Amino acid sequence: MMGGDRGLNVTATGVSLALDRHPDLSCTLVGDEQQIRAALGSVGKTDRVDIVHTSESVDMHESPASALRFKKDSSMRVALDLLGSGEVDACVSAGNTGALVATARFVLRTLSEIDRPAIISTLPRTQGHVYMLDLGANIDSPAEILMQFSLMGESMVRTIEGIERPSVGLLNVGSEEIKGSEVIKATNELLKASGLNYIGYVEGDDIFNGSVELIVTDGFAGNVALKTSEGLAQMLTQVIREEFSRGFLTRISALIAAPVLKSFRGRFDHRTYNGAVLLGLNGTVVKSHGKVDGLAFSHAIDTARLAAQKDLTGHIRHDLEASRISLTKATPS
Amino acid sequence: MMGGDRGLNVTATGVSLALDRHPDLSCTLVGDEQQIRAALGSVGKTDRVDIVHTSESVDMHESPASALRFKKDSSMRVALDLLGSGEVDACVSAGNTGALVATARFVLRTLSEIDRPAIISTLPRTQGHVYMLDLGANIDSPAEILMQFSLMGESMVRTIEGIERPSVGLLNVGSEEIKGSEVIKATNELLKASGLNYIGYVEGDDIFNGSVELIVTDGFAGNVALKTSEGLAQMLTQVIREEFSRGFLTRISALIAAPVLKSFRGRFDHRTYNGAVLLGLNGTVVKSHGKVDGLAFSHAIDTARLAAQKDLTGHIRHDLEASRISLTKATPS
Repeated sequence: MMGGDRGLNVTATGVSLALDRHPDLSCTLVGDEQQIRAALGSVGKTDRVDIVHTSESVDMHESPASALRFKKDSSMRVALDLLGSGEVDACVSAGNTGALVATARFVLRTLSEIDRPAIISTLPRTQGHVYMLDLGANIDSPAEILMQFSLMGESMVRTIEGIERPSVGLLNVGSEEIKGSEVIKATNELLKASGLNYIGYVEGDDIFNGSVELIVTDGFAGNVALKTSEGLAQMLTQVIREEFSRGFLTRISALIAAPVLKSFRGRFDHRTYNGAVLLGLNGTVVKSHGKVDGLAFSHAIDTARLAAQKDLTGHIRHDLEASRISLTKATPS
Repeated sequence: MMGGDRGLNVTATGVSLALDRHPDLSCTLVGDEQQIRAALGSVGKTDRVDIVHTSESVDMHESPASALRFKKDSSMRVALDLLGSGEVDACVSAGNTGALVATARFVLRTLSEIDRPAIISTLPRTQGHVYMLDLGANIDSPAEILMQFSLMGESMVRTIEGIERPSVGLLNVGSEEIKGSEVIKATNELLKASGLNYIGYVEGDDIFNGSVELIVTDGFAGNVALKTSEGLAQMLTQVIREEFSRGFLTRISALIAAPVLKSFRGRFDHRTYNGAVLLGLNGTVVKSHGKVDGLAFSHAIDTARLAAQKDLTGHIRHDLEASRISLTKATPS
């Protein structure tokens, strides 16, 4: 477990919150031992915490290749090594995404049916949430890779949410006649033949309207959709705050509306949605957003704990093997 | 001018509102004369309105090729013909986007420096708005096409907003190390050498934070960003309404907060942002969203009126010729 942009205080607060929430949880923190001890001391949390000292860390702007080659004693690398050797059950990082994907892929290897790991996360809806992948681990993914993402994502929704046959949609653009690139059209055909509960093309607004449980897309469009949502939500929150603080009367109405606005914010608190999973590896790796607080970081830990507890990796491996058989069978038809 | 999904009442209301707003405006409505007369009658508006009767219309799910080949007396085709022959100054349609792009391209032809038209629109920000293109006219656009979009978009922001050197950003994904496909990287190089006020890569959240005035992207990612924003805004509006109507006390607080919420909604009313321009044609064509009301439709008419009044097409033509010279000069260095 390693910190992000805001460093160890966020990590320590997050660990403390998660440990309080889950009596079955213990955490291993990887990084500068002295700094970790100081951060943990400030939140008053030392039991169920191990520390593994490392001398290096991966810079937020470091290239994945450089991280992989030159940072063998980085907190990121050592944490993933601990996961690879089975000493921990999951790994959470708020560090450099590209370096994390590359290092995790090197240390853990992808599952035998998977060529590239994908980043998956949930986004809030009026009721519940929707899963979406890939959120930026890969760009220019061909149809076969998008099909792998679909299978992994479907398996994750079943495992974590307990939905037997989650609905799967393929993200595409609006107009009928320009419906998709060649890659999208080819993926559409693969999905139709896959045996998944595939509902066809979905559009950007379908992310939030509850029409689908898993949305599959290339990492470019997925990242654009995710970041656009984050940016819009942030702007609207800021503007609501501005509008309510314009004058004396609006401040009074803000006080009166406070419980409603608080309940509203609670339903869509982005911190609750922190913690994206790197899918397709031999092990559970969770990416926390780099610019979040301790509460958000604790939710990334929750995600990792749940994935490990439900044996997400084992379920995906099993489902991929099963679907490989069914896909092979489906080919002649 | 033609209707969309909701038909002629929306068009008639929109026309009526726009005519009331602009004493210099007159409208030609193209479609079934009898139905148009009835719709205009119901909004009590007949002066400054001409009607051109057509017997056909393009279906919302019709292919562009079919519309182009078989619907020569469709309202869409005839309206574009009127624009092509100079009988009207701009054309507004709420019809099938793909058919509109294809038919407009056939009837009006693209500007000589432009290979494909692009769809551009504004999105709201905390202060003012940001322009973004392409919103879905093209997918899989190569770097040269994205460069054409950049030049046209920049010219439009200058012409309409009066900003001499608007800042231009290229939409890309988050992580440093996976920064963009080959197309994005190549476009980045072209933009750097273009002489435009190019600020580099931007991400989805930069759409709303005011850091850039024009965002350039492929129609796939652009459409995803637009639709995602629409979907999220719609969901949040619905949830705010739900939260305020949960019980007696929340209903009271809704009454008290009403002016604030109204002001908030006013700032981000998507209807104000209705009316996307098809850029790169010999003539002003505006696409209204298909599922909007008369107020929104009137804003699409406003957009068309403003573009025609400011001679948007002439400015783009002029700027493209100027930049072709500067681009040619820039090549040796």
